Amino acid sequence: MFYEDEIITFLLNSSKEEILERIEDIHPADILDAINDFEGDIVSILRKLPDDYIALIIDQAENDEKYNLLSLFTENRQKKIISEMSSDELVDLLGNIDEDKKEMIILQMDKEEAEEVKELLGYAPDTAGGIMATEFLAIKENMTVGQTLQYLQKEAPSAETPYYLYVIDDKEVLKGVVALRDIIISSFSTSVTEIMNEKVLSVPAEMDQEEVGHLFEKYGFLVMPVTNGLGVMLGIITVDDVMEILREEHTEDLYRLAGLGEGEKLAGSVGNSIRSRLPWLLVNLVTAIMAAATVSLFESTISRIVALATFMPIVAGMGGNAGTQTLTMIIRGIALGELTLENSKQVLMKEIYVGMINGVLLGLIVALLGYLWVGNPVFGFVIGMAMFLNLIVSTISGYFVPVTLKKLNIDPALASGVFVTTVTDVLGFFFFLGLATILIHALI
Amino acid sequence: MFYEDEIITFLLNSSKEEILERIEDIHPADILDAINDFEGDIVSILRKLPDDYIALIIDQAENDEKYNLLSLFTENRQKKIISEMSSDELVDLLGNIDEDKKEMIILQMDKEEAEEVKELLGYAPDTAGGIMATEFLAIKENMTVGQTLQYLQKEAPSAETPYYLYVIDDKEVLKGVVALRDIIISSFSTSVTEIMNEKVLSVPAEMDQEEVGHLFEKYGFLVMPVTNGLGVMLGIITVDDVMEILREEHTEDLYRLAGLGEGEKLAGSVGNSIRSRLPWLLVNLVTAIMAAATVSLFESTISRIVALATFMPIVAGMGGNAGTQTLTMIIRGIALGELTLENSKQVLMKEIYVGMINGVLLGLIVALLGYLWVGNPVFGFVIGMAMFLNLIVSTISGYFVPVTLKKLNIDPALASGVFVTTVTDVLGFFFFLGLATILIHALI
Repeated sequence: MFYEDEIITFLLNSSKEEILERIEDIHPADILDAINDFEGDIVSILRKLPDDYIALIIDQAENDEKYNLLSLFTENRQKKIISEMSSDELVDLLGNIDEDKKEMIILQMDKEEAEEVKELLGYAPDTAGGIMATEFLAIKENMTVGQTLQYLQKEAPSAETPYYLYVIDDKEVLKGVVALRDIIISSFSTSVTEIMNEKVLSVPAEMDQEEVGHLFEKYGFLVMPVTNGLGVMLGIITVDDVMEILREEHTEDLYRLAGLGEGEKLAGSVGNSIRSRLPWLLVNLVTAIMAAATVSLFESTISRIVALATFMPIVAGMGGNAGTQTLTMIIRGIALGELTLENSKQVLMKEIYVGMINGVLLGLIVALLGYLWVGNPVFGFVIGMAMFLNLIVSTISGYFVPVTLKKLNIDPALASGVFVTTVTDVLGFFFFLGLATILIHALI
Repeated sequence: MFYEDEIITFLLNSSKEEILERIEDIHPADILDAINDFEGDIVSILRKLPDDYIALIIDQAENDEKYNLLSLFTENRQKKIISEMSSDELVDLLGNIDEDKKEMIILQMDKEEAEEVKELLGYAPDTAGGIMATEFLAIKENMTVGQTLQYLQKEAPSAETPYYLYVIDDKEVLKGVVALRDIIISSFSTSVTEIMNEKVLSVPAEMDQEEVGHLFEKYGFLVMPVTNGLGVMLGIITVDDVMEILREEHTEDLYRLAGLGEGEKLAGSVGNSIRSRLPWLLVNLVTAIMAAATVSLFESTISRIVALATFMPIVAGMGGNAGTQTLTMIIRGIALGELTLENSKQVLMKEIYVGMINGVLLGLIVALLGYLWVGNPVFGFVIGMAMFLNLIVSTISGYFVPVTLKKLNIDPALASGVFVTTVTDVLGFFFFLGLATILIHALI
């Protein structure tokens, strides 16, 4: 472990040979952090590092930064670095650049590798096929433990994760998995079919990456094989990539709930932030105008009882908050697969009861407050009743909005918040100001 | 892979012997799901399963459900199941029950195990020490590859993860790590010190679990050793536990942002949900009252220009939304360690610029809208200017509220939302209604 400044100092002041000797003690993620924060000439630093290490640094970089790093090198070195990169990371790099540049890079690769990468690029980037790597250890059914050990001595260093060996038949159909520890504790003459686990769980190449993530979370896997419709083994997905995917999905959920665009970065440019946020604020403006239009229907009532305007923020604020509570429970339940067909009715009924009970309690508090503030018990009744009704509406819309969006195949995190607050604002004002209009003679 | 119904049918209708033969093909996580959804007699099903398998099912259960599962068995079987459980899961179980029950269980364990568990219970549950397991493979510095292989044949099955061997000296100080694959490809007479990696990264037992999670995410580790201040190896943390922690931390952030209590479950009881949500709604009521009090200062202005009431939801809604956008960026930046001392000033300035630019654009739109709606250009100026000012306030408070809470050691996700919307509501109404009061003669 080095600190960033030490890393930079070491790399700047050491010869290529000195660096080669000590580089394996430094994690590529630390070098990436160090050069990202370093404001000097990073090219001359990177040129001192060996090709396989550069490939590891590019592996660590964000998808949209990978190509920028690669393009710092001459075409000749690029070719060498690419041949050291793992297939899944190379595909992530190629998926984020123009067609022209992509073609250029693929032309530089040797034929076999180019074929493999083209095949991987054929899978949608957010599916099992799009995130898998093709560097796995496969052994044939008829091999013994002794033959497997010989094979391992040759192949293990290039595999993504050498702890599991996949057993395939002549047609490359996945037959089972052997753990490395079982290889070690078996005699050389044992057949691999004797020690393999036939119940190996694989994912189809088309499976959504978030679903893959849930399988890893549920079963605690370190790696999972990916197969096609015929059971042919295509690649593996490793837990470190899954963690990255789950983190991205989490961030996406949070951002979408808040109305932030996907690409926005904390230390990004002002223009980037404007492009990320302004569209959401404009959508929100439309919904705010709907709330305003509701209020405008009752302007003559407000002009006669101006205290109504004072209590408007309470009705809208409380309804929005209660709606967001339900909404968040439901969105999280959908994301984690906890909201099922069996329990959906029970969850909805629970939400309605919660809305009613919170509505009664908060309605009574607000009614008392309204009575004391304005000095009229009917005013207390109006605000209390509006609060009660709005809290029930908030839990019902907090349930149905994300569930409906999900059914329409729209990410519920994306637009639910806007819809729910629109419903609670519009109906909240409608209940409050409508009741006041009906009971106006008792209020003046 | 079985479906839940198949699992239940198989377990109900098979003899103990039949189950024993096929049980290793079923993942404990699937059995747990199946019995959770099954409404019949789960006790008679569970009694058919072997002790080590029951321990695996308890491992998979949520912390607060582990003891319920264990308590379905007789004291004698409980003892056997406990002896099969891994230390970290046992500690999770014991950490969620009464002192009395805890003492009872510890009394049932053999002396050595009891000592170990008591030591583990001494660490705070959300630290590296609180989540580590003590089942790791440690070899002495003076061992050879041949001796290591002999040791592995004996010990590997009980270890949490048998892919890394930790090399320790006579005082149990961590000296390095050897990957299982390097053992396989080395000759029997090689000394482990020759093939070990001395730069093994360990975490101190006191490190916060979220920080541990970030190290796993950054470096892509499968397992990390935990050491005390003297470098003595205490245990290991595995990536599957880390994924669970990261998921919990993320749910906690989402819940706290929405004002939901930690323990709330999607399909929990109504009472549980009320206890989780009502306190937050009451806090929000106080802040809504502050906004209402601000409005009440200007009742005489509103009574003369009632269109002000119509536009109030627009001012408050837009300010709240823009504030939430900044807030979410900052909270995520803090959680991922991306907001640092070096870039904090740059981030704040970016947020202010974003607030100004969005404020100008939305201010102009709203000014035009106000002018057209009310027919008075001064009204347009008032609402447009209020919008501009409120959007700047929203980004500044969206930045400073979470940063200040973090400095006070309060989780910024916990209370930021309430503070930010209070600031934007109160100041938004103040700007809007205050400007209208100053310019009242031009508005009537």
